[in-house]
Amino acid sequence: MTDGDEFALIARHFAPLARDPAARNLLDDAAVLNHSGATVVTTDAIVEGVHFLPDDPIDTIAQKALRVNMSDIAAKGAAPAHYLLSLQWPKNRAVEEIARFSEGLARDQDVFGCTLIGGDTTSTPGPLAVSVTMLGRPLGVSTPSRAGARIGDDVWVTGAIGDGVLGLMALTEGLALSAAQTSRLVEHYRTPTPRTAMAATVAAFASASMDVSDGLLGDAAKIAAASGVRLTIDAASVPLSTAGAAWLALQADGQAARAQLFNGGDDYEILFTAPPAKRARIVEAADDAGVSLARIGTVTAGEGVDAGEIPVAGHVHRLGA
Amino acid sequence: MTDGDEFALIARHFAPLARDPAARNLLDDAAVLNHSGATVVTTDAIVEGVHFLPDDPIDTIAQKALRVNMSDIAAKGAAPAHYLLSLQWPKNRAVEEIARFSEGLARDQDVFGCTLIGGDTTSTPGPLAVSVTMLGRPLGVSTPSRAGARIGDDVWVTGAIGDGVLGLMALTEGLALSAAQTSRLVEHYRTPTPRTAMAATVAAFASASMDVSDGLLGDAAKIAAASGVRLTIDAASVPLSTAGAAWLALQADGQAARAQLFNGGDDYEILFTAPPAKRARIVEAADDAGVSLARIGTVTAGEGVDAGEIPVAGHVHRLGA
Repeated sequence: MTDGDEFALIARHFAPLARDPAARNLLDDAAVLNHSGATVVTTDAIVEGVHFLPDDPIDTIAQKALRVNMSDIAAKGAAPAHYLLSLQWPKNRAVEEIARFSEGLARDQDVFGCTLIGGDTTSTPGPLAVSVTMLGRPLGVSTPSRAGARIGDDVWVTGAIGDGVLGLMALTEGLALSAAQTSRLVEHYRTPTPRTAMAATVAAFASASMDVSDGLLGDAAKIAAASGVRLTIDAASVPLSTAGAAWLALQADGQAARAQLFNGGDDYEILFTAPPAKRARIVEAADDAGVSLARIGTVTAGEGVDAGEIPVAGHVHRLGA
Repeated sequence: MTDGDEFALIARHFAPLARDPAARNLLDDAAVLNHSGATVVTTDAIVEGVHFLPDDPIDTIAQKALRVNMSDIAAKGAAPAHYLLSLQWPKNRAVEEIARFSEGLARDQDVFGCTLIGGDTTSTPGPLAVSVTMLGRPLGVSTPSRAGARIGDDVWVTGAIGDGVLGLMALTEGLALSAAQTSRLVEHYRTPTPRTAMAATVAAFASASMDVSDGLLGDAAKIAAASGVRLTIDAASVPLSTAGAAWLALQADGQAARAQLFNGGDDYEILFTAPPAKRARIVEAADDAGVSLARIGTVTAGEGVDAGEIPVAGHVHRLGA
């Protein structure tokens, strides 16, 4: 696209998303934020053929780009506030699709309460790539890192594990599940739910926290390494969705199947540790937030992750990776 | 690259660049900034085959990604402070090059006084793409936008215009200039100098300001549109480098040649307007900063840009655009 195209596209499709005066209606070269206190900031890009499929609906691609970043913000006990969008649009993809792309952004801005404050759109000879930088406001006095897990802490995870990788498998190889179940898995892969509803609970109680994006066990190993502890995971306690459980029941090798689920990417759940003394309050807070939550293990002395017979994979199963 | 590769790369090449505690050594999923007052934030991506050439030195690609963002920050009268890096690394580019990529970042961090606070590295089937989000601290009480130009203001520009597009032409088609001149133009294209030294002057005196990245005249038209005025540019006053002037002298059609220079991209100079009453102080400040500065026109009633016989191009000359 030419500069003129870019200018018109921004004015038409992106400026309406810039609802904070800080954004200067995207007519300037920078946004100017005025606030005091802490800001949590993160960046994550998604790339066609790596993090999403070329024929995924364009509005869900926009939503996924926002949601993977909101997931990081939520896992740090913060609320999403502002984001910048760096969009690399393939020369051979119809520019008209940008309208639906921005509709996806608009929908999620409304649901999650954040707003666009800046961006950059460029034409690329390569795949569609969407890089988002998101700024959030901490909901507690501290912002949990990966490094605070202590021996004796409980290990918690929100939602269900494995739906992301199953959604990808449903799209790429097909699954022997009902249409409704398949559809739910695909929806999880394309538009995961960032656990913003749990952010305040994480801020209040978590000793360590991160979002699960590269596989439960591999991400648990990151908390273990940063905290200098071992995470012992009870594989039977790891929550599965109805569709996930149905898929597991069909597999001949249950252990290998669990290894796939526990090492697959795109969960976008929150994995956190907290002192056992906080159990009751954590469960109550999750109930209030309407988010399912499972206690899946314990922090022990040592290093790495012990998930019984389930191995920790060295890398996540991703498209073309 | 696999997750394990990414983790090792970050620890080895990027964590040493994260010198602010806010970055949490890049071991966390987000940075936590604590400060009060205004923050200027911008994002710009550069893509192989669009904003740089595939065989440009990898350290200068890193530097260019930082510099185009620092240029925006400087034009807003702010000092670069922190940045996030979203790196899409082609599968077929040697991972070993990342060492020199990070050396380029380290060099510019030292020169310009900013530090890495977060990032994301992903493998891509497409071209190398480097997206940077930069946060800066305003050096004055206000942050000039594009919209403040007033009738009667002077129009100023730093440095020289046209060296960016000439550097690109030198690399892609060759120029009939001396090796030393060609080398300076190529250096400008690969590692433009962001005018951070002028940021305080811009903050103190500019009524409107932006960086010139998409061609002087097209960018002047953006100030005109945002401010509801006309910018009258005296083409003869637009500063050229020695190499630029030498190239111009060789062209049969001087007007067409000037049009190329004034509508070419990659200048990364600051274009600003200011009241004539501030002239002496602006000139003195530029002298003190060691930045050459030219008064190239006047803000008048009307709209658009009048550059005499030099037309305003609709789009910038870029690789593959």
